Amino acid sequence: MAVGRFYLSCLALGTLGSLCILLTIYWMQHWHSGFAWDSSSRMFNWHPVLMVAGMVVVYGAASLVYRLPQAWVGPKLPWKMLHAVLHLMAFVLVVLGLVAVFKFHNHQHISNLYSLHSWLGILTVFLFACQWALGCAIFLLPWASMWLRSLLKPLHVFSGTAIFSLAMACVISGINEKLFFSLKNTTKPYSSLPAEAVLANSTGLLVVVFVLLVLYILASSWKRPEPGVLTDRQLLPRPFPVAYMPVAEDAC
Amino acid sequence: MAVGRFYLSCLALGTLGSLCILLTIYWMQHWHSGFAWDSSSRMFNWHPVLMVAGMVVVYGAASLVYRLPQAWVGPKLPWKMLHAVLHLMAFVLVVLGLVAVFKFHNHQHISNLYSLHSWLGILTVFLFACQWALGCAIFLLPWASMWLRSLLKPLHVFSGTAIFSLAMACVISGINEKLFFSLKNTTKPYSSLPAEAVLANSTGLLVVVFVLLVLYILASSWKRPEPGVLTDRQLLPRPFPVAYMPVAEDAC
Repeated sequence: MAVGRFYLSCLALGTLGSLCILLTIYWMQHWHSGFAWDSSSRMFNWHPVLMVAGMVVVYGAASLVYRLPQAWVGPKLPWKMLHAVLHLMAFVLVVLGLVAVFKFHNHQHISNLYSLHSWLGILTVFLFACQWALGCAIFLLPWASMWLRSLLKPLHVFSGTAIFSLAMACVISGINEKLFFSLKNTTKPYSSLPAEAVLANSTGLLVVVFVLLVLYILASSWKRPEPGVLTDRQLLPRPFPVAYMPVAEDAC
Repeated sequence: MAVGRFYLSCLALGTLGSLCILLTIYWMQHWHSGFAWDSSSRMFNWHPVLMVAGMVVVYGAASLVYRLPQAWVGPKLPWKMLHAVLHLMAFVLVVLGLVAVFKFHNHQHISNLYSLHSWLGILTVFLFACQWALGCAIFLLPWASMWLRSLLKPLHVFSGTAIFSLAMACVISGINEKLFFSLKNTTKPYSSLPAEAVLANSTGLLVVVFVLLVLYILASSWKRPEPGVLTDRQLLPRPFPVAYMPVAEDAC
């Protein structure tokens, strides 16, 4: 992947991510009376918006920090901190999204955590919390040895993409579930594909495209070079400073 | 990953995959009157079973063919053929699964392809068909150049895992949707978590574990060595024949 294609992908991701959030807001605003923080159904409306924003868009952006060409050279610590802070922002949005649905359910005396969507959702958030805490403890704080970091890095990278794939499954099942609820007993049921269904289904597909594009960039060879690996200078926007060669301390 | 851990993972995958299929069969047999091929609701019952079997279990097994230590040495063509045949078997099961749901819908005058589950499902099957046809045309038949194969191999590998992740999202949303349908207007609704819901939710989580384990093995360094890359003989069950060294023609 050349630098031009990388930045084009970033532009596509920015547009797609914004669209996913804006369409979810529009869905809740136009067909479900907008937003409030008062335990009513308008409080529930924060749930899809905060989950798409936190668990998909901000999480995806946080995952790609090390792919920025600026992060390829120099000390890794500032980029690690940005990676951790963005993921923390995503986590805060997700927790607020959970508060929105739990408070709504409790106020309306609706059971919590019975659907497969909710089982997988709570499992995904739990794994996200573990991933963030372990990631900080092992890779950000200074006490883990290089040996331990090298050993756990592939698992940390895999877990990050796995949690992101689970988030996609949660969003798809969540949109599907919400549409079956909200279009039940209406003159235009889900099966007649009213405008709300077309918009929400399309938002779900956009989320899928966003997630796959992030996973594609993560899987590509476009990344900070491992220590000792020669880097193709032509791939970078500017050549490395001649004196720079990644060293072992930068690796993890 | 050492050879012992690889075979242990295979054992775990075999057990998990069998459990996923058997539990889906049990769900349909015990709570939904079993199976028939007569356009009734008993025909629909083939849909979840064939989709879990085809799009998850057989697809997952087919993806792992090149990870078998036996596939690491000697000509690649027989393993390519096994990879293609297993994926074809998966595709046939998936098409039969689609026939089951379309015939049931048409017979009961239920609309097709309106839910997000069905939109994503049909997109996933379409991508699977394209992936299989292009895979055969580029990597199995002899007319594509080595240059083209090397260029497209990373995309083929990424698409394979992406389609598998989409299949997971389809299964989760499908189980969720089916439970909302079948436990509607009953004395024990979904929200009261009756036995059927617990079994089907658990089956969904087992599918997730199966998919993540396959993706973990695919992401690990446990794979046929690229030509020219020295292989750690200790990782293999038997040392390479002394005369064997992977050559360029084996790569793709």
